[in-house]
Amino acid sequence: MSWVEPPFSAVTDVVSRALAEDLGVFGDITAALVPSEATVAAILRSRAPGVLAGRACATEAFRRVDPTTEAEWVLGDGDVLAAGSVIGRVSGRLASVLTAERTALNLLGHLSGVATLTRRYVEAAGPRARIRDTRKTTPGLRALEKAAVRAGGGVNHRGSLSDGILVKDNHLAGLSIAEAVATAHARWPGIACQVECDTLDQLATALEAGADMVLLDNMDLATVAAAVAAVAGRIPVEVSGRVDLDSVAAYAAAGADLISVGALTHSAPVLDIGLDLEA
Amino acid sequence: MSWVEPPFSAVTDVVSRALAEDLGVFGDITAALVPSEATVAAILRSRAPGVLAGRACATEAFRRVDPTTEAEWVLGDGDVLAAGSVIGRVSGRLASVLTAERTALNLLGHLSGVATLTRRYVEAAGPRARIRDTRKTTPGLRALEKAAVRAGGGVNHRGSLSDGILVKDNHLAGLSIAEAVATAHARWPGIACQVECDTLDQLATALEAGADMVLLDNMDLATVAAAVAAVAGRIPVEVSGRVDLDSVAAYAAAGADLISVGALTHSAPVLDIGLDLEA
Amino acid sequence: MSWVEPPFSAVTDVVSRALAEDLGVFGDITAALVPSEATVAAILRSRAPGVLAGRACATEAFRRVDPTTEAEWVLGDGDVLAAGSVIGRVSGRLASVLTAERTALNLLGHLSGVATLTRRYVEAAGPRARIRDTRKTTPGLRALEKAAVRAGGGVNHRGSLSDGILVKDNHLAGLSIAEAVATAHARWPGIACQVECDTLDQLATALEAGADMVLLDNMDLATVAAAVAAVAGRIPVEVSGRVDLDSVAAYAAAGADLISVGALTHSAPVLDIGLDLEA
Amino acid sequence: MSWVEPPFSAVTDVVSRALAEDLGVFGDITAALVPSEATVAAILRSRAPGVLAGRACATEAFRRVDPTTEAEWVLGDGDVLAAGSVIGRVSGRLASVLTAERTALNLLGHLSGVATLTRRYVEAAGPRARIRDTRKTTPGLRALEKAAVRAGGGVNHRGSLSDGILVKDNHLAGLSIAEAVATAHARWPGIACQVECDTLDQLATALEAGADMVLLDNMDLATVAAAVAAVAGRIPVEVSGRVDLDSVAAYAAAGADLISVGALTHSAPVLDIGLDLEA
Amino acid sequence: MSWVEPPFSAVTDVVSRALAEDLGVFGDITAALVPSEATVAAILRSRAPGVLAGRACATEAFRRVDPTTEAEWVLGDGDVLAAGSVIGRVSGRLASVLTAERTALNLLGHLSGVATLTRRYVEAAGPRARIRDTRKTTPGLRALEKAAVRAGGGVNHRGSLSDGILVKDNHLAGLSIAEAVATAHARWPGIACQVECDTLDQLATALEAGADMVLLDNMDLATVAAAVAAVAGRIPVEVSGRVDLDSVAAYAAAGADLISVGALTHSAPVLDIGLDLEA
Amino acid sequence: MSWVEPPFSAVTDVVSRALAEDLGVFGDITAALVPSEATVAAILRSRAPGVLAGRACATEAFRRVDPTTEAEWVLGDGDVLAAGSVIGRVSGRLASVLTAERTALNLLGHLSGVATLTRRYVEAAGPRARIRDTRKTTPGLRALEKAAVRAGGGVNHRGSLSDGILVKDNHLAGLSIAEAVATAHARWPGIACQVECDTLDQLATALEAGADMVLLDNMDLATVAAAVAAVAGRIPVEVSGRVDLDSVAAYAAAGADLISVGALTHSAPVLDIGLDLEA
Repeated sequence: MSWVEPPFSAVTDVVSRALAEDLGVFGDITAALVPSEATVAAILRSRAPGVLAGRACATEAFRRVDPTTEAEWVLGDGDVLAAGSVIGRVSGRLASVLTAERTALNLLGHLSGVATLTRRYVEAAGPRARIRDTRKTTPGLRALEKAAVRAGGGVNHRGSLSDGILVKDNHLAGLSIAEAVATAHARWPGIACQVECDTLDQLATALEAGADMVLLDNMDLATVAAAVAAVAGRIPVEVSGRVDLDSVAAYAAAGADLISVGALTHSAPVLDIGLDLEA
Repeated sequence: MSWVEPPFSAVTDVVSRALAEDLGVFGDITAALVPSEATVAAILRSRAPGVLAGRACATEAFRRVDPTTEAEWVLGDGDVLAAGSVIGRVSGRLASVLTAERTALNLLGHLSGVATLTRRYVEAAGPRARIRDTRKTTPGLRALEKAAVRAGGGVNHRGSLSDGILVKDNHLAGLSIAEAVATAHARWPGIACQVECDTLDQLATALEAGADMVLLDNMDLATVAAAVAAVAGRIPVEVSGRVDLDSVAAYAAAGADLISVGALTHSAPVLDIGLDLEA
Repeated sequence: MSWVEPPFSAVTDVVSRALAEDLGVFGDITAALVPSEATVAAILRSRAPGVLAGRACATEAFRRVDPTTEAEWVLGDGDVLAAGSVIGRVSGRLASVLTAERTALNLLGHLSGVATLTRRYVEAAGPRARIRDTRKTTPGLRALEKAAVRAGGGVNHRGSLSDGILVKDNHLAGLSIAEAVATAHARWPGIACQVECDTLDQLATALEAGADMVLLDNMDLATVAAAVAAVAGRIPVEVSGRVDLDSVAAYAAAGADLISVGALTHSAPVLDIGLDLEA
Repeated sequence: MSWVEPPFSAVTDVVSRALAEDLGVFGDITAALVPSEATVAAILRSRAPGVLAGRACATEAFRRVDPTTEAEWVLGDGDVLAAGSVIGRVSGRLASVLTAERTALNLLGHLSGVATLTRRYVEAAGPRARIRDTRKTTPGLRALEKAAVRAGGGVNHRGSLSDGILVKDNHLAGLSIAEAVATAHARWPGIACQVECDTLDQLATALEAGADMVLLDNMDLATVAAAVAAVAGRIPVEVSGRVDLDSVAAYAAAGADLISVGALTHSAPVLDIGLDLEA
Repeated sequence: MSWVEPPFSAVTDVVSRALAEDLGVFGDITAALVPSEATVAAILRSRAPGVLAGRACATEAFRRVDPTTEAEWVLGDGDVLAAGSVIGRVSGRLASVLTAERTALNLLGHLSGVATLTRRYVEAAGPRARIRDTRKTTPGLRALEKAAVRAGGGVNHRGSLSDGILVKDNHLAGLSIAEAVATAHARWPGIACQVECDTLDQLATALEAGADMVLLDNMDLATVAAAVAAVAGRIPVEVSGRVDLDSVAAYAAAGADLISVGALTHSAPVLDIGLDLEA
Repeated sequence: MSWVEPPFSAVTDVVSRALAEDLGVFGDITAALVPSEATVAAILRSRAPGVLAGRACATEAFRRVDPTTEAEWVLGDGDVLAAGSVIGRVSGRLASVLTAERTALNLLGHLSGVATLTRRYVEAAGPRARIRDTRKTTPGLRALEKAAVRAGGGVNHRGSLSDGILVKDNHLAGLSIAEAVATAHARWPGIACQVECDTLDQLATALEAGADMVLLDNMDLATVAAAVAAVAGRIPVEVSGRVDLDSVAAYAAAGADLISVGALTHSAPVLDIGLDLEA
């Protein structure tokens, strides 16, 4: 397993659920029209440029529908796709390939879409800032989408509420930033305590409180630059909100170390990948 | 349950999985910093115009994290949202509300995004053609996304491979259209047999074979018009491929009864819905 | 919970699976045609004489579809039904009641069918022999069917391969009856070791080996009587095979303590129970 | 996969649940008495005439208990069985075969029972009418039982509440037949709207409303004949209620296109299939 | 499967849950640092004397993480371990072996700990009394821990509340011992009815009531001896409470047939088993 | 939810599995002997000094068996228990309370055992070092055991392989420490990279490589002191191996910031907690 791939348990889990969802009570009643002895070889091909992700899901979809289906891969997660790139080749019983096709393509297309959008942000941001995802993922697909972000060259923010601390405004209804940071440090040695700041005043408070990272939310470029100056390299600075493909380079230039973008996982359009039967 | 909502079993299933995914081993370690006696009231508000979907998911997310959290709704699935529309109000323990917030918003935002894009297609198409979804849904979320399409004014294609027959080119590697239609009719009385046609010749064959519906795939407008003329109202005509928000009206004008759009579910951007704490 | 009812965990498990199976991707699209404000009261009524079983399943089906549906019961598991007996009354939203109806009735009808057939055997056998079920149960429904057998006046054989020892001919391919009994006693103090015997010779061997119970399989009446005489009351004697409603009294008269009947669970016809809307 | 077999996901699901149910906490404590090196070959044989169904379930049961067990099949789902027909042959470790035996036979026997009863109805009905199942299936086994009906020569009614519309009397508490049909057509293009009719008046209303199919429920033969005449071939006519093996030919002769029989799945007795060890 | 091993369904269930728990959202991010082509061979070795249990779990953990990992075993469940004993050898991709290592060792160590403590009790008790476990097992691991007790030379008490009757003081709030035993015998032929006794008076009542076994709870040695004398070999006598490694021999000497010890499963320290990479 | 409690999803998951495991096919056949109208009130009481953990599990066990059972709590997770401390009071149907009792007590006893052992280490270590757990947890119970460690005053190490990086010797078969740390930092900003060191040389390498934390494994006290001096407060120092209740104070005195102890979760004996019926 490459580090840009998801854990196998997430793959088997999602694929088995997707197939059960699609097979319903009767199974694939159209594919069952096809003579069972008919076989096929087919090419998985990208129809648009992008970055591949989700290969393990596709393998699992074909294998689970029919263990005799063979999948051979030319490219892997994180590889760059041109329009027309051959990703891999699938061969076996025609009915089995057709039954698994949509599940395999849905996962490949969605996850490659996430990887592709991530890559666009990464390239737009340039080498000075890293692009991060958020918890704004599709329910049930977090492990897969976060792996797709890695395949696209991004890095991951928290995997869950359990493995990172991010103190936001709403948490401060009952305690101060200083209390939050101190309590977090006492309870969770080894887990960074990040504080979301909407203003330079909050930033000053967060720095004084000993935050390990700050998340500058919804600040304009000038304020981000001022914030970066105030932090002066002592801790990593992350920026979120107001960032899109047009503005990301400017935010990177303003000195952000990390830029988190919800759109990577909540608004990435599918990457068009198709299965073409060989003649 | 309104007909634009998903079955409750899909709601509880997806929400419980989403929360387990987000709570991880330690739970919400940031919310646990908040004093447990702190309470809150908050407004769910749309930050952009669109159509609401996913309300039952949000209710379930708040309730499952903490049954004492109250959710009151002003709007329901299928209702139109302006930027700033109040959707509902949530009140209860602060920590509980914050823990459930992201899961609730992820589902509301994604499903309202699907409903909103559907509505745009429906309005662009006008009253002469119905907009349909496809099986290009997010794995694990089909029931929810198909309900969101209904909330947006669209209609549903097959729920699964089990409840509709759609004969495509790839199925014809081992049998003729005539054989496919005849076998389908013999096996599945009561289920419509739809045949995908790429050419007018195929259409003629499908009509002769007794197809109950045809899906004209990737045809230009002139060919669609010719196909509609050939069908002459005997069976419903569906169009797919090459359709986007700019072209959908023209395809409708060309006489399509149904227009199916994969983008509704595979490429709808999130609708921005937020939770604002009351002062 | 009465002892004739199944454990609640089996009830919730089976009902949630049954509803998910029946609701599919779109839910109950016919019930969704009904105005959501329409309410109803309905009577669960037996349309044939029999014995009730499965009440907890019906309660759970109505409750899970809609917690506002009320179920009030007149009769309980194990109660005798005449044709026309009122079993209970359900009231609530019309659409909710209709959606849950089939799942509730499928479980009530099947389990009452098991209880009813059991009662017929119990009555035919008379007071001298007890009627037992077997492991020939419907996959996934064992706990419910075994409870229905109790509701019908029968007693349960093993719950699973784990909680009883029954040495059959096929087990003796690799060891003697004496070895089997000795090993079973050594390993599983507190679990009775029953030996299946097809002949009086085998019975003699089993008795000598110290079997705690014997199962006389496929013996005619005279041989059963001879076997009962040979056992002479030292251990319980169970009879299986060749037993039907016509012959069960004779087998009881021949001295069997227990008579096990696979048909109770694998071949019981449904008991016709219906839901009649009140005017 | 032949079209008379269930989707593989239903097979693995049911078999794994059945085995867990039967293995309990200790596993098969009787089979564990057998020397682990003992091997066996055994024949699966029908002990009564009928139609085979459930082969994939049996394969899965033996394989899951022990992947080294080999199953070779002579016959497949839908094949006719005489008393004594050899269905297949199983070989491997004796203990493994004995542990899986009951689960395999329970599924084979029950599903072949459904197929066999279906075949009897199909033959009794003759070529003019098709026999259909209903939603009166065993909870958790719908996909398997519906496949068994196909194996027996029947055809399937709805797979779930989600994939067909059947308007019954009880749905009309809040809307008219005309409203129901119109709404159904508007919402669900491509899904047939069937209306249950108890009288010729209702039938007239349903026809006028544009129903796609009618279900004549509990009508006597003369009324069915009158209804068939009234429909005059415009839409398919299905009959249910009052139909048994004695009357099914008459209902077919009265002109029903389809005859649905709940008993196929709720009251089919087991088909006796056994496992005989080879000498 | 040897009789000292758990049913395979419990093994796959526990291992898949343990791996999902440990892999989280990102998978093993440390192992992913390792070059994917690196391979390894490693020895599973006991670092302390004891008894092995849990081998099937370890096999499954390595296999499920990566089916290409090979596990070869030198020893099996129930075998005695010295400090330094080689248990088996694992070879395959380095990253895969490291990912599975902790799950495999956690299960091996815990279950071998149970087997080892059981063996110590068995040896301390001597041949006159059998050591039994209780229902005081770790939630979710009952089947595995009960198998480990067998591997350690002990025997199992009830697998669950479903497969044995043990009447305790608390059950007598609403019925007498005589009523309890009589009802148990009537309802559950073939299941032994054991009665817990705290005093000799209760014992006398239990004997008179026809209890099949008694459990002498929290009695001192002299009272146990008196109780054994009172029972006079008619039924098995089990002792619980006040028993530890120091006193178990005396209780055995006092005549107990069975001695049940909760500590076997609720307080067994881990057995230290490690994975040493080969040079 | 207090921060010393586990996420609710882990609680419901473990409890439902534990109850299903204990209820088996027939349910609690002993409790079913009790008249169903009998009620009871009972006190949960500690029989030994310790620290409470697992309260939410006990609540859930009683509630799930019977929602009418009331549990009132005097103490909460993290509270100190004397022998005889009243923890809470349970009241409701006698049969329901008895059925849930063992599951509730198994979880309370095990988790309080973990909390109690943790507290002993915390007190022995004194205020200068924090006690941490490891991944050596019971499969399936990680979230609960890690919460129990917090209840006992300890802090948590990684929740899973996904949320922390710990480079051990075995990972270095294919890359250097410097490469490991650099890659980890590049891939996982915000996640600390900890390096296990067996020698002072390795420590020097780890420091130079930029490790964020070190884990000194199996070092004697003098070496630990030398290591602490070498680190000179730049990063946190954790110690593991060779630590027990006798030596932990010395390791703390040697300057460890954190001391991780596998025994907290793999070898904690149960804390004896009982349920006493009120007279």
